[in-house]
Amino acid sequence: MRTQVVIIGSGPSGLLLGQLLTDAGIDNIILERVTKDYVLSRIRAGVLEEGMAAMLDEAGAGERMHREGLKHDGFSIAFDGGCHRIDLHGLTGGKRVIVYGQTEVTHDLMDRREATGGVTIYEAANVQPHDFDGDRPYVTYEKDGVTHRIDCDFIAGCDGFHGVSRKSVPEGAITTYERVYPFGWLGIISDVEPVSHELIYANHPRGFALCSMRSPTRIRYYVQVGLDEKIEDWSDDRFWDEIRRRLPEEQAQAMKTGPSIEKSIAPLRSFVAEPLRFGRLFLAGDAGHIVPPTGAKGLNLAASDIRYLFDGLREYYQEKSKAGIDAYSQRALARVWKAERFSWWMTKTLHLFPDDGAFGQKIQHAELEYLFSSVAAQTSLAENYVGLPY
Amino acid sequence: MRTQVVIIGSGPSGLLLGQLLTDAGIDNIILERVTKDYVLSRIRAGVLEEGMAAMLDEAGAGERMHREGLKHDGFSIAFDGGCHRIDLHGLTGGKRVIVYGQTEVTHDLMDRREATGGVTIYEAANVQPHDFDGDRPYVTYEKDGVTHRIDCDFIAGCDGFHGVSRKSVPEGAITTYERVYPFGWLGIISDVEPVSHELIYANHPRGFALCSMRSPTRIRYYVQVGLDEKIEDWSDDRFWDEIRRRLPEEQAQAMKTGPSIEKSIAPLRSFVAEPLRFGRLFLAGDAGHIVPPTGAKGLNLAASDIRYLFDGLREYYQEKSKAGIDAYSQRALARVWKAERFSWWMTKTLHLFPDDGAFGQKIQHAELEYLFSSVAAQTSLAENYVGLPY
Repeated sequence: MRTQVVIIGSGPSGLLLGQLLTDAGIDNIILERVTKDYVLSRIRAGVLEEGMAAMLDEAGAGERMHREGLKHDGFSIAFDGGCHRIDLHGLTGGKRVIVYGQTEVTHDLMDRREATGGVTIYEAANVQPHDFDGDRPYVTYEKDGVTHRIDCDFIAGCDGFHGVSRKSVPEGAITTYERVYPFGWLGIISDVEPVSHELIYANHPRGFALCSMRSPTRIRYYVQVGLDEKIEDWSDDRFWDEIRRRLPEEQAQAMKTGPSIEKSIAPLRSFVAEPLRFGRLFLAGDAGHIVPPTGAKGLNLAASDIRYLFDGLREYYQEKSKAGIDAYSQRALARVWKAERFSWWMTKTLHLFPDDGAFGQKIQHAELEYLFSSVAAQTSLAENYVGLPY
Repeated sequence: MRTQVVIIGSGPSGLLLGQLLTDAGIDNIILERVTKDYVLSRIRAGVLEEGMAAMLDEAGAGERMHREGLKHDGFSIAFDGGCHRIDLHGLTGGKRVIVYGQTEVTHDLMDRREATGGVTIYEAANVQPHDFDGDRPYVTYEKDGVTHRIDCDFIAGCDGFHGVSRKSVPEGAITTYERVYPFGWLGIISDVEPVSHELIYANHPRGFALCSMRSPTRIRYYVQVGLDEKIEDWSDDRFWDEIRRRLPEEQAQAMKTGPSIEKSIAPLRSFVAEPLRFGRLFLAGDAGHIVPPTGAKGLNLAASDIRYLFDGLREYYQEKSKAGIDAYSQRALARVWKAERFSWWMTKTLHLFPDDGAFGQKIQHAELEYLFSSVAAQTSLAENYVGLPY
């Protein structure tokens, strides 16, 4: 087999790249390790920047997002008994975010890929990129006991943090930067009405909490927990009790509760690999970088990577210019690091860090008090939250 | 002896409070442990916020500051070979800072105190506040071998970090918050023309550097050094070589050098005592809190403390209201913590922190790159630098 671009991974970044390439007349094949249903069963973030929404439109996959997605003009930070709204729309000259689950994004992109005849090979085992340091890279995989080979011009590694793409790069060619946070997020989904029509991030002496949502009838709530916590120790009742203790009185009393339909604990990590290009292999999205979920930048960073990568590949094929692919790593990383900084700052400012000591905690509280008092500080937060320019 | 307010310490905060009280017809005596010449020999910061400048005017001691002080509309941050200006004046709607040495401020306030008949007792040894938890506090001190006692209504502890005022508070009544930074500032003064007419703060792989000034013909430059560095190991030549290595090419080449007339190493510390009032004893300035010098907030915080303290005392005597003195600690600390946060942030963003590791350093660099790209972030920096509202 031969194609122009092999895309490893059928998450939002791989699907988005594939669709933009297909629409530009550039051949591509997506290799996915698991089944389509498994991909669609993954639960992930769901706050989209307008830049990402525009890319879904560009890929012809934005229609349902516009219809069903919830436009949010602001969010609130609960602290010290009060609830302080950050007016995203007012502070950024009219920008907003769209609450629309990553699973839905994936679904829409898959539908669009099928409608436009794009090829995705599911259950492709032992995917392996080869010879990407030369001019003739290829990718091998196994399916139904047979080993297949796809020759290509480029390989896009869109296979997430644990994927094979980054691991295929020789150790000496890559530098990684990492911070692991001393806590996780215990999250639940439940079919009840959200406590507020906007998100609430809470800084509380017992730890962080987040009231998010998937729809007007489905909540996605989280509480900060220790890394040693076990999911089986958290009954629904215990979760509801805990999150209510971390919210201001008004929100705690208004909170509707119900049985969880999903419950899990996820660790928080910051991670960046440099560079994001190795010859004819590109890393995009979680394959190249991870942010902690505070501020919901992960999915959006995948989209901006694809912006730069697609533009580079399009220039290569349509304008015979290597400038875009040569600039990919540097352009993507410049935006990645700003989002890493923001996600780190949101995490640092909103969570309980027991090892920071009394001074560190006072500085954190001063950060919030200053934020609530300063239009400039709120504008800085807002411009990062809605997404820095591509 | 009896007076209304005994002020311990003849630095800027004590002198400023004393003058405002004197001008309001409120009796006060300043007790100073050392001689006038010794006080005037101390070398300290010299970047005044407009709020502090207005207080010097109010105290009738601003005339020379307006004549000789240098109005600065901005400063620069050197990073990664470039020099990025922060337009304080433009970003804050017309505010600026005034470069005018603390020694000069002290001098002007002393002159004014003498001209208006204020009493300062120099070389007052073993100063000790007493009974400030009751209605009849008094202060004892020794001079020329004789113990003296001054009865008073209130005691203002303006005697700095090492002074007796804070140490006189029972341990259980006070909470302290502290961070000691893993480096110091090696500073020199030399009579050469400054490398720039504005300040330059440098973030460099070899460590922080600051090019400040006292006048158009006198520089005050600093480099970050390890805590184990000894001043005798730093010849003038070594200092000049080091600071030039930490500046962009253009500034390094333009830098004029000369013999130092002062050279010293100072540690960096963040410190806050809570509360700042203990019955009839008030702490103000360095007696209550210390900031690292990055951002030059120490002197300005002393001034804002005195703003709140003087207003409280004036209300007490002229309006028979305790509201102002009851609110002193909370009002002062709210501003102190914001300035502690800012000074910590400036320190954290501009210095080399070897223990932060590679990820921490990348986040620091991303912070600077984001700052240079964002008007909102620059506005936040600028509003803190020129001074948050009282």
